[in-house]
Amino acid sequence: MPVPPGSQLSNWQVSHPGGSRIIPTIIRRRSRAALLAAVISLPLAAQAAPTDDRIARIADEGYAHSKVMMTAHELMDGIGGRLTNSPGLHRAQDWAEAKFRNWGLSNIHREEFLFGPGWEIRSSYARMIEPRPIEMTAIPVAWTPATEGAIRAPIVVAPMSKPEHFAEWRGKLSGKIVLVDLPGTGDEPNRAPFRRLDSNAIAERDTYEQPDYDPDAGEERMERNADREELLRLSAADGALAIARKSYRDGKLLHGSGYTHWPDKAAPLPIVEIAAEDYRRLTRLAKTGPAPVIEINNDVRFVNDDVMAENLFAEIPGSDPDAGYVMAGAHFDSWIAGDGAVDNGAGSVAVMEAARILKSLGIRPKRTIRFALWSGEEQGLHGSLAYVRRHLADKPALDDPQADHDTWTTRWPLTKKPGYDDLKAYFNIDNGSGKLRGIHAEGNLGAIPILKDWTAPFASMGIERVVAGDTSGTDHVYMQAVGIPAYQFVQDPLDYGSRLHHTSIDTLDHMKADDMRQMSVVLAGMLWQAANDERELPKPPFPTEPSPRDPFAYDDPDEG
Amino acid sequence: MPVPPGSQLSNWQVSHPGGSRIIPTIIRRRSRAALLAAVISLPLAAQAAPTDDRIARIADEGYAHSKVMMTAHELMDGIGGRLTNSPGLHRAQDWAEAKFRNWGLSNIHREEFLFGPGWEIRSSYARMIEPRPIEMTAIPVAWTPATEGAIRAPIVVAPMSKPEHFAEWRGKLSGKIVLVDLPGTGDEPNRAPFRRLDSNAIAERDTYEQPDYDPDAGEERMERNADREELLRLSAADGALAIARKSYRDGKLLHGSGYTHWPDKAAPLPIVEIAAEDYRRLTRLAKTGPAPVIEINNDVRFVNDDVMAENLFAEIPGSDPDAGYVMAGAHFDSWIAGDGAVDNGAGSVAVMEAARILKSLGIRPKRTIRFALWSGEEQGLHGSLAYVRRHLADKPALDDPQADHDTWTTRWPLTKKPGYDDLKAYFNIDNGSGKLRGIHAEGNLGAIPILKDWTAPFASMGIERVVAGDTSGTDHVYMQAVGIPAYQFVQDPLDYGSRLHHTSIDTLDHMKADDMRQMSVVLAGMLWQAANDERELPKPPFPTEPSPRDPFAYDDPDEG
Repeated sequence: MPVPPGSQLSNWQVSHPGGSRIIPTIIRRRSRAALLAAVISLPLAAQAAPTDDRIARIADEGYAHSKVMMTAHELMDGIGGRLTNSPGLHRAQDWAEAKFRNWGLSNIHREEFLFGPGWEIRSSYARMIEPRPIEMTAIPVAWTPATEGAIRAPIVVAPMSKPEHFAEWRGKLSGKIVLVDLPGTGDEPNRAPFRRLDSNAIAERDTYEQPDYDPDAGEERMERNADREELLRLSAADGALAIARKSYRDGKLLHGSGYTHWPDKAAPLPIVEIAAEDYRRLTRLAKTGPAPVIEINNDVRFVNDDVMAENLFAEIPGSDPDAGYVMAGAHFDSWIAGDGAVDNGAGSVAVMEAARILKSLGIRPKRTIRFALWSGEEQGLHGSLAYVRRHLADKPALDDPQADHDTWTTRWPLTKKPGYDDLKAYFNIDNGSGKLRGIHAEGNLGAIPILKDWTAPFASMGIERVVAGDTSGTDHVYMQAVGIPAYQFVQDPLDYGSRLHHTSIDTLDHMKADDMRQMSVVLAGMLWQAANDERELPKPPFPTEPSPRDPFAYDDPDEG
Repeated sequence: MPVPPGSQLSNWQVSHPGGSRIIPTIIRRRSRAALLAAVISLPLAAQAAPTDDRIARIADEGYAHSKVMMTAHELMDGIGGRLTNSPGLHRAQDWAEAKFRNWGLSNIHREEFLFGPGWEIRSSYARMIEPRPIEMTAIPVAWTPATEGAIRAPIVVAPMSKPEHFAEWRGKLSGKIVLVDLPGTGDEPNRAPFRRLDSNAIAERDTYEQPDYDPDAGEERMERNADREELLRLSAADGALAIARKSYRDGKLLHGSGYTHWPDKAAPLPIVEIAAEDYRRLTRLAKTGPAPVIEINNDVRFVNDDVMAENLFAEIPGSDPDAGYVMAGAHFDSWIAGDGAVDNGAGSVAVMEAARILKSLGIRPKRTIRFALWSGEEQGLHGSLAYVRRHLADKPALDDPQADHDTWTTRWPLTKKPGYDDLKAYFNIDNGSGKLRGIHAEGNLGAIPILKDWTAPFASMGIERVVAGDTSGTDHVYMQAVGIPAYQFVQDPLDYGSRLHHTSIDTLDHMKADDMRQMSVVLAGMLWQAANDERELPKPPFPTEPSPRDPFAYDDPDEG
């Protein structure tokens, strides 16, 4: 009996958590044995029907018995920031492994990949000393060296972004702390920072876009990095003591992100990021009077004991060893300024909560369900790329690890690995803590009808639509680049992009509990259906080198 | 000749600063002597006409030769925060006096009033020590005692706002740092922080409101203060080491405002305000595990050497000693967390720039123009009330200085001072750095046609309307409460209320230079016209005790 009595009521109830306490009563009427029998005896298509009781049980577990915010609390408040290969991430991985074990997940394991050293802040401060004392709001930039005690020196404002800008400053940086960013003016935030999507905004994403087999634009990034390295080298040779950058957001928000983690390109100087308001005050004072004197102290350290980073996995094994697996993943690493809550503690604990929910129901899927907590995402999706190259498909390798990484997608041909066909679907979460409002088919057009079926049960929770458009910039893109059906959801943006992403206020306060419960329930429900549907998601075409977008273009010699 | 050739062109030009450089040429065609002769020989009404050349000269000086942002820079960047009676305010007053002197203003003088001690932060920090080290964002609360070195102690979350809440916590505060605010949840800022007014929003203010002769609601405030003092006394007696409060804005913004400056009500414990994100993390950790241990260090000091605060005045003397005076004012004191830029450095430097502009033109008004930089505004409009009581009108006094201050408006009768009739108009600026968009007639209905004439020249700069409604909460209200024609302008709100007011990011970055130039020009123009118009603004009715709003109301015994 796939549609239990009262299931419509309970479906309505679970979308309104306040009224969900009556559901356990309904569920308790049917014994677990009877449910298991039903799972085994039913045709698979019927099991995946929108009113399937297992979906309502997932919703009940994920709303009425949710643990997602407690899990989030342990991770964000108790452990905090998780820069790749830092002690914080190592603690978090040990904690997550124990959680998975405690919940009874299977095949909990880690897979290593070459990354480089970790890095952490022990303490830091920045002060203006002259013309008057002010405690500034500032943060060391990740993977830059310590100041080895306080540095007190006059500043010089020397805006430089390309090596050719250095000529103007040669001979003027000795003994100085060099402010390299233009100050600009205060922002005028005339859009609401916090927002939810309306139906029109969701519909706009339902637009076909050409598949992007080169999602990373690595060569451009290498060029920018090389410019920055050259400027640092020139500044150090000129006698500069340290570099100061301006935070790219106003409102005293800090990031501390932005420098390369590649060990052979280590910064020769300490770099501090100063809050925009404090930075601009320095530049104004320097413009109109004697250069301000500031004191900075970056007590930071590299963690060199292990250059291998790790992805963490756990599973619910499938009943059919030939049926392959489905997977959900989120990057577990964060940047340094906050507690890594909405980027991407939110996605991580939603993946963990989906695992807990599904495991707690004691039901066995046909296909294995794998849960992945990636590392090295923030420095270029390193963890998920390592997974792709190990298990799914690879390309000719280069000797230089950075070049190998940053140009991987542009090299051809692509060769399948033996495990390629086993991965039937991948769901990634990495857009903050906002409620799921739909799913991007990411150009995988034939999958749309199946995704519509799978999302239909969650319409009353806010899932509105399967949209054709794609998303970029996180761990599903390398899977897409090798032709795996890999998806991100449409999420309410909330204040993710406007003020939380990589900032000092990326804390648990700004995760929305109702949204997190919904996210966990929908993810669990999607995984459950993907693991059991007799239909497999059609795979996108296996990628080969695409035609140039503009076959008639010439290189512009004015563009670097 | 009241309408010089080319004046329409130049009027248009000055509203577009980029094109204003042609104006000096037009002006140079007429010698200063000729202009002075024109001033003296013309009937007064003609002098105040909208196309009066003096208005265009004011605009040219205030746009093409503006000094307002440099003045702002010296004050905000160079001197910074200006808590009443703090060393910062004293430095700023000395600086402003020198500026006025340098610009050639007359009768530069100060007037004392009883206030109480100053206070300042030398340095401070707050850290979480257990369960993991975090540097928190925090600020000592003004006029609370120093910690005398660092205090390291476990916290207790004991939400208390009224003395009756204390019973639950008696015996539990010893050796603790007590978090007295409920944590609440993260905000959802779904309105744009930065905004300008449209015509509808301005028109909404054109609504008559009953005159408010009791603008301060002092008795309620005294009650809240008494509750807080009692709670602090009880907590100290119970052995609490310090009090921690939550910032009332999210986003790591700090204020440090909120405690009374009255010396006989001094806090018996140090009080620290912790950023909302850091405060809530503490409360979550305390709810689910062992109480976090934090360390706070408030290195602050009272400045007791002078309990008398000062208002600062400067003048452009009028040609007619019997014509009285007009006045513009702004409070010069600020709170402690930022540089006091939009509250109220902006108003202060606009008043100073208006003085500079008018003085620089070398033209003499009929009535004296007085410029006032008030002090003690943030603690209850003390400076402007002192001026009112000394020069305009007073009421029976009480022995207790706080009660005398906080209940002054509710006591009757009101008695005029000899200088009462001399003050013809008062313009106050204290709503941030936003452009002036109109003027509140503040219920002074008969003044509307005259205010319309005076604002008409500035329509092309964004002044749209004279509105009947009133404004409250700053230094014009006590003047209104004694029947003086005292006005605030309609101003574009920008991000004043949403994130700058009293916060750690109230810095020069968030003052808008174009808006500041417009504000200074319009203020100078209004003062010039008010000082020369043959018409006097009609005075509002002399206030007597108003009828009760609801003559049939009974006291509700449930309301304190």
